[in-house]
Amino acid sequence: MAGAGRFFEDFIVGDVIRHATPRTITLGDLALNQALYGNRYAVQSSDAFAQGVGYPRSPVDDLVTFHVVFGKTVPDVSLNAFANLGYAAGRFLAPVYPGDTLASTSEVIGVRPTSKGDAGVVWVRTRGTRPNGELVLDYVRWVLVRVAGGRPLPDPVVPTLPAVVDPAEIGGACPRIDASAWDDALSGSARRFDDYQVGEKIDHVDGMTVEEAEHQLATRLWQNTARVHFDGYAQKSSKIGRRLVYGGHVISIARGLMYNGLENAFHVAAINGGRHVAPIFAGDTLYAWSEILDKQTLPGRDDVGALRVRLVGCKDTTPGAFPLKTADGKDDPAVVLDLDLWVLLPR
Amino acid sequence: MAGAGRFFEDFIVGDVIRHATPRTITLGDLALNQALYGNRYAVQSSDAFAQGVGYPRSPVDDLVTFHVVFGKTVPDVSLNAFANLGYAAGRFLAPVYPGDTLASTSEVIGVRPTSKGDAGVVWVRTRGTRPNGELVLDYVRWVLVRVAGGRPLPDPVVPTLPAVVDPAEIGGACPRIDASAWDDALSGSARRFDDYQVGEKIDHVDGMTVEEAEHQLATRLWQNTARVHFDGYAQKSSKIGRRLVYGGHVISIARGLMYNGLENAFHVAAINGGRHVAPIFAGDTLYAWSEILDKQTLPGRDDVGALRVRLVGCKDTTPGAFPLKTADGKDDPAVVLDLDLWVLLPR
Amino acid sequence: MAGAGRFFEDFIVGDVIRHATPRTITLGDLALNQALYGNRYAVQSSDAFAQGVGYPRSPVDDLVTFHVVFGKTVPDVSLNAFANLGYAAGRFLAPVYPGDTLASTSEVIGVRPTSKGDAGVVWVRTRGTRPNGELVLDYVRWVLVRVAGGRPLPDPVVPTLPAVVDPAEIGGACPRIDASAWDDALSGSARRFDDYQVGEKIDHVDGMTVEEAEHQLATRLWQNTARVHFDGYAQKSSKIGRRLVYGGHVISIARGLMYNGLENAFHVAAINGGRHVAPIFAGDTLYAWSEILDKQTLPGRDDVGALRVRLVGCKDTTPGAFPLKTADGKDDPAVVLDLDLWVLLPR
Repeated sequence: MAGAGRFFEDFIVGDVIRHATPRTITLGDLALNQALYGNRYAVQSSDAFAQGVGYPRSPVDDLVTFHVVFGKTVPDVSLNAFANLGYAAGRFLAPVYPGDTLASTSEVIGVRPTSKGDAGVVWVRTRGTRPNGELVLDYVRWVLVRVAGGRPLPDPVVPTLPAVVDPAEIGGACPRIDASAWDDALSGSARRFDDYQVGEKIDHVDGMTVEEAEHQLATRLWQNTARVHFDGYAQKSSKIGRRLVYGGHVISIARGLMYNGLENAFHVAAINGGRHVAPIFAGDTLYAWSEILDKQTLPGRDDVGALRVRLVGCKDTTPGAFPLKTADGKDDPAVVLDLDLWVLLPR
Repeated sequence: MAGAGRFFEDFIVGDVIRHATPRTITLGDLALNQALYGNRYAVQSSDAFAQGVGYPRSPVDDLVTFHVVFGKTVPDVSLNAFANLGYAAGRFLAPVYPGDTLASTSEVIGVRPTSKGDAGVVWVRTRGTRPNGELVLDYVRWVLVRVAGGRPLPDPVVPTLPAVVDPAEIGGACPRIDASAWDDALSGSARRFDDYQVGEKIDHVDGMTVEEAEHQLATRLWQNTARVHFDGYAQKSSKIGRRLVYGGHVISIARGLMYNGLENAFHVAAINGGRHVAPIFAGDTLYAWSEILDKQTLPGRDDVGALRVRLVGCKDTTPGAFPLKTADGKDDPAVVLDLDLWVLLPR
Repeated sequence: MAGAGRFFEDFIVGDVIRHATPRTITLGDLALNQALYGNRYAVQSSDAFAQGVGYPRSPVDDLVTFHVVFGKTVPDVSLNAFANLGYAAGRFLAPVYPGDTLASTSEVIGVRPTSKGDAGVVWVRTRGTRPNGELVLDYVRWVLVRVAGGRPLPDPVVPTLPAVVDPAEIGGACPRIDASAWDDALSGSARRFDDYQVGEKIDHVDGMTVEEAEHQLATRLWQNTARVHFDGYAQKSSKIGRRLVYGGHVISIARGLMYNGLENAFHVAAINGGRHVAPIFAGDTLYAWSEILDKQTLPGRDDVGALRVRLVGCKDTTPGAFPLKTADGKDDPAVVLDLDLWVLLPR
């Protein structure tokens, strides 16, 4: 049946799924992205600022690229998923501008039935491409998918994934900039790449309360069709009893909050890993904090440097408490998102 | 008083009302339309896909054209309406692209006082035109309008309306396409015009819960000023006790859901008829199903064919149950919308 | 700490603050503005109408210019404000079109500690400029800002502000138009500058209920970061117990409602003064009425004239009652906004 989605047994390692529907990203999408997440990064906000440092115009927010590429995969990959387990090896490889069209394909790179046998983990490598085939984003995610039943389950194939994306492989989404033309007053801070220390923790201060209308607008905008986000009637009789907020909505809120303290972190260059630690519902208020895990220069580039940032989203709490793990090593109940990113800053 | 609207006695058969406010449709409107309804039709989503089959760029969603043309009529036609009774003879006649400006006029083509004498049915034929006068949409709708009182009521004039739009009169909104260049993987389905059978019923599977903020955003976007949609304070003391969702919002949600199973139905070419069977309120979850009533080729065109589809919107129910009428011939209580459309598919 | 904002002692008269983040206004922003406020002014709605009277294309809604310029000031001026006390001397000085980039600076022009010593009034003159330095908007606002403590408080400096902007200084945002080409049917009314009388009161009829998702979308769109609008969790433990709606959201709603009765008031040319009389919360329904305080021709211009309008926003009431003051001279409890504007109409 159309719209019914794949079950665990339908995923064969090596298969490549070409996803519907290609999508042209427009200035309208970017305005909605602004209204949903409140970003203040100067390069993406002002054509004049972007041109001043070397872009032809403001590029698309990297996470818009991510959401557009991701959304297409849902009807084919995760419609029957119990959970979105994680991300790895995410690389933003080419600049994206308003008017660009993106499509997605996903290659099945791993499968592993659970011991209970009612579900299995599926790993896919998703690639976002332009109509000419140029790759703009690729990333791996793995999801726990329902077993349909009545068919033999495959032998496990578990892919090897890097713990962190090699800095030599990032930066493609950021053209060479003229860092000397970067206006710190307009960008909001004089703190650049050299001014951050490994180990530093940053409280992003602000909180953002999520509304049903907001996450639904976002999720439809990105053509993500997972029912748990929209169908309040069916969700009433689910275990969780209500609509779930799309995990990507939480990522973009955290990225928006991150501006307080990382004002010049103008590109998300890679997603080393990530986990939706706990679900978010309408009415929850999101906060975020970051820890600088590493810093690296990029080969051949003296214009920008990369910070490896652990970006932690938490809810209904004081972000300055930097919640992460409880004393016995479990996830702090306030934590909802634990992302590991490379972000770029001017030098 | 400005903003008070016309009463039944103000409608004279033969009068033509030129409506305020002309409206340029932009990429911003289309992004909002995407965020509100989650459409996935490839032609409207991707400039590259549209260009590949012969468009200069992605055309405007046909229902955006409808909403823009419709919205303008509200202050002049239905501000004092008790109910929007029906639609007929709706034809999309020319392609519309972002940047196009539309205005509306309505001709009064029928009036009939109710037996009670406190209201009357008014039929108008509304035409949406470009500034050069080119017609892009015309349709008939009829509404039940309040009698102001103190003036004689007119003799009834009841227009004759076609039960269905002649397929020879549709297709104008769709330029000739190259169906051989249509990529079924990108459009989301290999099922084209020839693959559907008359009598077939299609469950559109997904559900969409409506929020107050969403329908208000939509209705203001289309410059529809009917107070019942926005004024929660006044609605509290109305018989219904709360805000009503704009009927067109329900139509667009149903059209969005219709993608599951009719992925290649890329144009709404005509509205043969339609009825808002029951009101929708925030918190309701909408589902939809379709029945193929007829299929016709278009004179002189081998690129596309037309399916006549009964698109039924229902709420808070199991969509696969195909609700329509109860055993005693009444509307099933789950049904909220009963539309009769011609849609175009590639051959 | 980044994102912590300035306290009263941090404001030094004569200091000029360059605000982050410059912002390019796009058609996407205008579509959202339309969806949020439902404007129907023909010049801003239709490129064809605007071109017909002499614009190159539809200009940006004047209040969008205001919100964009205002939003940037919040992190530097009012993050620690108890209240936004008033506006004066606001002049829209140059036309703004989609694609234009604006940045803001604020000059501290006055400070006055309160007698209690825990807060102080700060006056700033904010200027919105293009990258080439051209001024498009300037206005004064004053806010009550928290005292950090531990530092001496400054001597008071209270600026002299005009009660009304001189009509000779307004009109810059409106290019010369051809009023003879103005189509009253399309604009929605035949009432022009000459048809309004000083002293006339206008009931704007419609009501608009505010939703949390709506004001949050608006406030993030304009990059306004005041926490009271977004952080429902922190607001729960505040004196007011819930999120506050951004005052500018209320202004734009009132401006949208104003169309009923002032259909041809196509530009806000100046903000003579204004006061948020009472806070607005999600669920409140806004109404508006206007009083014509004055009318003036503009030096050297026979195309447009200016009406001085007192625009009063009220909530959960009958706007036709024209609430303003109670018998004992206090603000009527229904009143939430009291604005004094110059608006332009064709002659």
